[in-house]
Amino acid sequence: MTRPTAVHHHADVAAHPARVADRPRSDLEIARAAPLKPIAEVATDRLGLTADDLIPYGRHKAKLDLDRVADLASAPRGRLVLVTAITPTPAGEGKTTTTVGLGDGLNAIGKRAAVCLREPSLGPCFGMKGGATGGGRAQVAPIDEINLHFTGDFHAVTSAHNLLSALLDNSLHWGNPLDIDTRRVTWKRVADMNDRALRHIVAGLGGPAQGVPREDGFDITVASEVMAILCLSTGLDDLQRRLGDIIVGRARDGRPVRARDVGADGAMACLLRDAMAPNLVQSLEHNPAFIHGGPFANIAHGCNSVLATRTASALADVTVTEAGFGADLGAEKFLHIKCRQSGLRPDAAVLVATVRALKMHGGVGKDALGIPDPQAVRAGGANLARHVGNMQRFGLPLVVALNRFSGDTEAEVAAVRALCDTAGVPLVVADHWASGGGGAVALAEAVDALTQEPTPEPRFLYEESLPLAEKIEAVATGLYGAAGVVIEPKVLRQLQEFEALGYGRLPVCIAKTQYSFSADPSAKGAPDGHMLPVREVRLAAGAGFVVAVCGDIMTMPGLPRQPAALRMHLNTAGHVDGF
Amino acid sequence: MTRPTAVHHHADVAAHPARVADRPRSDLEIARAAPLKPIAEVATDRLGLTADDLIPYGRHKAKLDLDRVADLASAPRGRLVLVTAITPTPAGEGKTTTTVGLGDGLNAIGKRAAVCLREPSLGPCFGMKGGATGGGRAQVAPIDEINLHFTGDFHAVTSAHNLLSALLDNSLHWGNPLDIDTRRVTWKRVADMNDRALRHIVAGLGGPAQGVPREDGFDITVASEVMAILCLSTGLDDLQRRLGDIIVGRARDGRPVRARDVGADGAMACLLRDAMAPNLVQSLEHNPAFIHGGPFANIAHGCNSVLATRTASALADVTVTEAGFGADLGAEKFLHIKCRQSGLRPDAAVLVATVRALKMHGGVGKDALGIPDPQAVRAGGANLARHVGNMQRFGLPLVVALNRFSGDTEAEVAAVRALCDTAGVPLVVADHWASGGGGAVALAEAVDALTQEPTPEPRFLYEESLPLAEKIEAVATGLYGAAGVVIEPKVLRQLQEFEALGYGRLPVCIAKTQYSFSADPSAKGAPDGHMLPVREVRLAAGAGFVVAVCGDIMTMPGLPRQPAALRMHLNTAGHVDGF
Repeated sequence: MTRPTAVHHHADVAAHPARVADRPRSDLEIARAAPLKPIAEVATDRLGLTADDLIPYGRHKAKLDLDRVADLASAPRGRLVLVTAITPTPAGEGKTTTTVGLGDGLNAIGKRAAVCLREPSLGPCFGMKGGATGGGRAQVAPIDEINLHFTGDFHAVTSAHNLLSALLDNSLHWGNPLDIDTRRVTWKRVADMNDRALRHIVAGLGGPAQGVPREDGFDITVASEVMAILCLSTGLDDLQRRLGDIIVGRARDGRPVRARDVGADGAMACLLRDAMAPNLVQSLEHNPAFIHGGPFANIAHGCNSVLATRTASALADVTVTEAGFGADLGAEKFLHIKCRQSGLRPDAAVLVATVRALKMHGGVGKDALGIPDPQAVRAGGANLARHVGNMQRFGLPLVVALNRFSGDTEAEVAAVRALCDTAGVPLVVADHWASGGGGAVALAEAVDALTQEPTPEPRFLYEESLPLAEKIEAVATGLYGAAGVVIEPKVLRQLQEFEALGYGRLPVCIAKTQYSFSADPSAKGAPDGHMLPVREVRLAAGAGFVVAVCGDIMTMPGLPRQPAALRMHLNTAGHVDGF
Repeated sequence: MTRPTAVHHHADVAAHPARVADRPRSDLEIARAAPLKPIAEVATDRLGLTADDLIPYGRHKAKLDLDRVADLASAPRGRLVLVTAITPTPAGEGKTTTTVGLGDGLNAIGKRAAVCLREPSLGPCFGMKGGATGGGRAQVAPIDEINLHFTGDFHAVTSAHNLLSALLDNSLHWGNPLDIDTRRVTWKRVADMNDRALRHIVAGLGGPAQGVPREDGFDITVASEVMAILCLSTGLDDLQRRLGDIIVGRARDGRPVRARDVGADGAMACLLRDAMAPNLVQSLEHNPAFIHGGPFANIAHGCNSVLATRTASALADVTVTEAGFGADLGAEKFLHIKCRQSGLRPDAAVLVATVRALKMHGGVGKDALGIPDPQAVRAGGANLARHVGNMQRFGLPLVVALNRFSGDTEAEVAAVRALCDTAGVPLVVADHWASGGGGAVALAEAVDALTQEPTPEPRFLYEESLPLAEKIEAVATGLYGAAGVVIEPKVLRQLQEFEALGYGRLPVCIAKTQYSFSADPSAKGAPDGHMLPVREVRLAAGAGFVVAVCGDIMTMPGLPRQPAALRMHLNTAGHVDGF
């Protein structure tokens, strides 16, 4: 997991490498060619907002006024659709692309629909090629602005996180009044950058005037608990309270030391105030897209913010949102963490698959994806079937969206259809990448039909009262096909300690590879009977979950040998190019 | 210089601690009570801009469209006034406050005037109390937004700087094709934070997958060469070229390794694109204020951006701008670096002084500043006289502005007047802190009178062709009252090496304490006969100057025992408080 491809951890949206031949233009070229409307016009026409509700950030981005957001908290909500996917492969599934395409498709059939996406991180943007703004005709724009800085939310998270770090080290420097054990500081620093050299550092070197030497390290900003808090907070007061609850380490007597003890919570909340306001942009078809927050889907819950989803649901008849990675990680956390904490309830789910990804799950190598192989599709179908079963276990009405690539053969598509028939779930072939919302009309109609019933109460896999270790086991055996979990005695003691501290009712957030149902990224398809190894547990007391690290998980990616950054430049017109 | 007061390095605007008793409300309260106009209205009414020229960032901040900025490059320019100050003391001089007050005063007497300020850094904001938005009735607003994140420019600088760091370490990791000597990497990382624990670190620890171990460290963002480049670049092409010119270290054969060699220049320019556009806000009296860029005034040149000053000069009849610290550092660099590189030429200068600061230069301690002491004012006047002489040496028409505090006695003010009479320079007592632009009408009239003549060509203290060591000596003996400079042979060899590399024509940027004409911060008044010790030299090949570090200079401040951050919080209305 230390290979450069680790950046895929965040880049769910693959670059469709094999589709280069049959597409005339890059995503950037397509997006640039599409004229955008003033964002206030989109907000007024499609969401019924007024100009006063918006705080403009440039010409095509806006934040929603937080007072308006607060007013909408108790408004009646439209339907909510979760887009999730089969287990990711390097072939690419196109979950963000499908989310945007479905939003445009719903608008095309006359529904007032909005999409809710996560903000892209600068790290993968400069690492492997790939922003997080969709692709082809199903994109949100302006893509260079969204991918670079956007409205500054991630920088605010970085600043707030590192202010806590600085105040913590400052407390150590000035006599350590909290009696913090420097060997048990768990709060690292963050940077919105793929920078492996910062993973493990020794800081505070240089003598008594330069602080207290100790081991430290940087995670990427999307792995920060502050990011998870920003995305789960229901308002500014909740934000400030959660920030104070963050546990940064232990005192020498073992007592947890919180951000509140360090005195950092208020200033952190000030830094995050504007970042709490949801961001509004538009799709290439001028439909509203909320893009807000972007926590990792392994070490955190991988969903856009509660405030954005709640606000969109109050303004639109249908809100389409996505969760990170495959349904085993993203949808599970969407339900057990985001929905359980916020009260949001999805009306239906869309499971995105591609013929190419199913072939990879069926054993086909990346170089052979161009060769028609319905048999491999059938073999890889085990992965699809497992995810379908999982979503049905949650009690969610489901449709499978086959994100069509032009090289897909009729026989391959038929193989997917047969798989879905067997699994008892409708399949819709969607062509939004090539055709925009018009290519997703059938998908939109299927989703619309699926959400006519009253919102079902999701069937969670575990009660809040279940011991933490058993919650991990419930997810592993219930969704991953695992025979059980392996928790070392030391880790088990930590879980018991969390329970003793009063955190036993928290949900678990399992950090495992996104490339497999198991902790082994090479185990494609639908492995079963494996044991899930719980290597480490971490308490995210502010965000409100317990992270279970299973296998090798990278929280600071590295850059590949030839990073995407090397191709980027300003062209003679002063525009971002090579993106 | 490792004491927490090091944060004063950037916080030129002191908090007027002794004035607390006689002012009814805090700066934040005064600013919040003032209704602001929509920024587009200020831009239209006061600068003749159209809405299309603006890119809004929130309701009261905007960036100017870069195409419009480029169009204005060749437009006729109005008059340019530099505000500088005597040597700073903890008593506070109020240079930013005077700049804002003078701008309002000029508008009050019917001139179309704009001010150009530097952007505040988050570091001092959370360290010692003190933003950088003026004070009393002479402020720019909204102050919480300007002091926290603003339009994201500093975050863009941080990202661009650290992307270069990450790409450099990535090159080391992937076989070191540039043969970089890890012991001779001079490019550190940056954070916009006072964080002493990051001054000296060892990075790249953890084994072969985690990069290459080496010594490293963080500077504060305002000390980044990228910040200096942003502020000196005349356009996007110049920006991208300068970024490529940055020297990050040496190869094992001694050859300089540049950002261009690492392939970082293009992506850095993309990250900085929007940050290049000048920011527009308003004073409490609704007059235009450009706030753009904020390089340190020791390790860099300490002025707001060339683009902002040039743009303001093209739009306003009079542009008032400030330079960092006292005139020995700020005004000298404004002239030798900013003006010489850009072709900008000031028409006059304002030297800001306070009775309180003069008393400190005359030997009065901070606790005794409330006691009337005209004799101490006269003694401290040596500092004022030195600065007056220096500015006259540059050939600049000059007025001294006495920034009035309510505790100043008639006898003390008379002492300052006598000093100015002797020095042959007009004195104006200004009361903008208490009265806004109305309190600066006399100052505005004096400045207006002073700038009626054609713009004088400044008399630079050295020719570009002078050897670098002699340039340092010219500044030290010409402005600081030094008898000479002490340059160790090793440092002298480095200067000769810079000359051999073709950088001999660059100006020098002297990094010394701002608290004295000498390198000893305790030597107040006007010390002379001292030798300036040149401890270290650094080549800023992209920014275009050679830094001479004289004495102890802190490029990453620390937080004090009780940082201002501890008081900050969101109040029940969701507003930033304790600021």
